[in-house]
Amino acid sequence: MTLTIVGIGLIGGSLGITLKENGFATRVIGVDAKPENLHKATRRRLIDAEMSLAEGVAVADVIILATPVDAMRKLLPEILDRVGDHQTVVDVGSTKELLLTELEGHPNRGRFVACHPMAGTEFSGPEAALPNLFAGKMCVIVDGDESAPDALDTARRLFKSAGMTLSRLDRQAHDLHCAYVSHISHIASFALALTVLEKEKDEQRIFDLASSGFGSTVRLAKSSADMWIPIFRQNRDNVLDVLDEHIEQLSRFRTQLIKRDFDGFYERIERANEISKILQ
Amino acid sequence: MTLTIVGIGLIGGSLGITLKENGFATRVIGVDAKPENLHKATRRRLIDAEMSLAEGVAVADVIILATPVDAMRKLLPEILDRVGDHQTVVDVGSTKELLLTELEGHPNRGRFVACHPMAGTEFSGPEAALPNLFAGKMCVIVDGDESAPDALDTARRLFKSAGMTLSRLDRQAHDLHCAYVSHISHIASFALALTVLEKEKDEQRIFDLASSGFGSTVRLAKSSADMWIPIFRQNRDNVLDVLDEHIEQLSRFRTQLIKRDFDGFYERIERANEISKILQ
Repeated sequence: MTLTIVGIGLIGGSLGITLKENGFATRVIGVDAKPENLHKATRRRLIDAEMSLAEGVAVADVIILATPVDAMRKLLPEILDRVGDHQTVVDVGSTKELLLTELEGHPNRGRFVACHPMAGTEFSGPEAALPNLFAGKMCVIVDGDESAPDALDTARRLFKSAGMTLSRLDRQAHDLHCAYVSHISHIASFALALTVLEKEKDEQRIFDLASSGFGSTVRLAKSSADMWIPIFRQNRDNVLDVLDEHIEQLSRFRTQLIKRDFDGFYERIERANEISKILQ
Repeated sequence: MTLTIVGIGLIGGSLGITLKENGFATRVIGVDAKPENLHKATRRRLIDAEMSLAEGVAVADVIILATPVDAMRKLLPEILDRVGDHQTVVDVGSTKELLLTELEGHPNRGRFVACHPMAGTEFSGPEAALPNLFAGKMCVIVDGDESAPDALDTARRLFKSAGMTLSRLDRQAHDLHCAYVSHISHIASFALALTVLEKEKDEQRIFDLASSGFGSTVRLAKSSADMWIPIFRQNRDNVLDVLDEHIEQLSRFRTQLIKRDFDGFYERIERANEISKILQ
């Protein structure tokens, strides 16, 4: 099977190497607006050949769209305009509502399967691609009823071959839950990095004291603005909703400190500890 | 050398096993207010014998105080009342200002070395103890000029034998910098856990979506209230100072979302990314 990956970054590159290694793809084509990404991907053997979008779509059995989510809004209709009934298009984006709403009525809508593999690291670009990024993680298929059964089946086999567990959500639920669990974590981490950079002018000191757990809490603050700004733009209302709650939770800790209400603070830490039951 | 550890939890237990294995201690005595902690520590071979505080202090060359920081305020003067010039007492607490201020004028002040090994996990108790917890991490020695030179030398050799790098701060600077880097990370993580638990009533959904980076950001939210409430109580003013800054940083993100100022949001993510230069 020939696989064309549009956007050879962390996720696209990792899918390329994973699906070639496990035999799902016999040939992996890379398409990217940035020539240097293609060159890096070729040097790292994430892809077998570099092509233009038109060429890459023409030769593919399966096309994976792995660009930032703003570029997807433009590229997805262009790609679907060119595909036939034997081809399947999947995306890997973190927001779905706007993309799918804009796609309504497209004559080839059925060839597209909206997918969100919940895997990643704080790094980006083809240099960050990893072969085992997806194993054991969850992939959400969104509004799967709108995809043709054979396209859906192809997408399911693709992500299962990478070791992923499949789950289904509709587009509104997907964007809401991703805001509640994933997107707020990134904002919290960006804000924590800014807080420490603002208060702690001595950079050596941050490094010295970072083994205190700061490192893991702030890990996501290394994430790329090019990837995340389009997500926050598209999922703004849901993100605002959960961000309000987060500020409220922090403000309650603030009030408890001001009032020296350490019994109340203790109870809320014990409640927060319950997250370990869920996360294992 | 006989080592007595008062408080056989994550840090005390880890020091017991590390210092026995590397030969710094020939015998490790455990003292703990909770008999079940001592039994667990014995079963896990973290300690060689269980004793009362009086017995443990009497036989020790070095005494490590590894209880929560509120218990230290009571125990440290009691221990120093009993030690002679051949004995060294070190603590491992996360706050120093109140402890050291209360200790001023104690006739045996010189036998005590205030230490903060910057190592830990989100788990607690002797069952969480690890032999390699300290290697490559930083240990801060606080107000070292107030310790007798031989006691200071013993403390330095102890933490160096565990693979730690040493650093020095005065008590005010220590508590301030720990609030700025470590303590705020824990509050941010507790608040994120509470946010997600509040918004996301479906626990299975949290689990499904947690591979999105939520897990690392919320890792510290599993930390023990018994350990952290005394730290927040003792370091309240510094924690309030940095918590205000953190709420301000989040509120700025909120304002930028409301105003759809995504250019400004982008710039602030790029600024947050600078944390990676410091953390490596």
